[in-house]
Amino acid sequence: MNVLVINGTPRKHGRTRILASHLADTYNTKYIDLSSFALPLYNGEKDQQDIKEVKQLKEMALEADGFILCTPEYHSGMSGILKNMLDFLGSDHFKNKPVALIAVAGGGKGGINALNNMRTVVRGLYGNAIPRQLVLDPVHFNTDQRMLTSDGEDLVENVVEEFKFYLETAKRLSFK
Amino acid sequence: MNVLVINGTPRKHGRTRILASHLADTYNTKYIDLSSFALPLYNGEKDQQDIKEVKQLKEMALEADGFILCTPEYHSGMSGILKNMLDFLGSDHFKNKPVALIAVAGGGKGGINALNNMRTVVRGLYGNAIPRQLVLDPVHFNTDQRMLTSDGEDLVENVVEEFKFYLETAKRLSFK
Repeated sequence: MNVLVINGTPRKHGRTRILASHLADTYNTKYIDLSSFALPLYNGEKDQQDIKEVKQLKEMALEADGFILCTPEYHSGMSGILKNMLDFLGSDHFKNKPVALIAVAGGGKGGINALNNMRTVVRGLYGNAIPRQLVLDPVHFNTDQRMLTSDGEDLVENVVEEFKFYLETAKRLSFK
Repeated sequence: MNVLVINGTPRKHGRTRILASHLADTYNTKYIDLSSFALPLYNGEKDQQDIKEVKQLKEMALEADGFILCTPEYHSGMSGILKNMLDFLGSDHFKNKPVALIAVAGGGKGGINALNNMRTVVRGLYGNAIPRQLVLDPVHFNTDQRMLTSDGEDLVENVVEEFKFYLETAKRLSFK
């Protein structure tokens, strides 16, 4: 898939990173891992456009047919590091492209607010956040082996299936 | 007021900064200006706790009786730099403290999603986001003179009046 997967956890050992690398490996996508990709804090100044990582982010986002955004839930929202990355981008990168949203949470009702936050922000970027979304809880990870459980993989697969449908649709019905 | 005002725009010439410095000057508050306060991107590692600005942020937040959060609306949410700052904090800093929310937007319906985003996140931090909130549009600024208009100042004053009421109430009814 000509898709850009974003790992939105800054933590090297975060579960969100397990999810994002699973997606990138299994579905052979482009991948930006915010736990290592050295973006600065967005400051609105033009000279930031010359920074290597900012250029690379914009090029990768422009070329992608769609996005899968993966975030931990921090204080009932997406991570600050993910929102900071999105602040560098705009509708040029997202307009009418399908975007799949997955949050990684600690259980209970966690994750939903992060999804709602991402959905609203993706709309602000003029992306098409697809209806199916997902929260993965600790039970969906085998943390020792740094992998998803079989159930977790199935849930992710369901999201990707719908995402692929929207990717195909967007290709056939191109309205920029 | 023993209150911490946050300027949530990274832009030195942003209108949000005019608002935040007006608040800090007029109401004699503590002030963190994210356009100059050099926080790193939050990465969840313990060694970030030793960074001078991280320590200073936590101390100022702990000591404050309440907060006024000022943000631009970026892509229908609060700025990434503001969310990144909040990711360093927790309920220790916010629990049951009054929090006033003000967004700065470009007109039309702008600003409301940033307010809703902040309100949900403040709840996630266990702060008490007060009912009165405000969006300031370009018409409320005299940008050449780097100040609010008289109408803009009155709108801000209304928010501060309610905020003061909640500050007093929180002092009298201390339930931590």
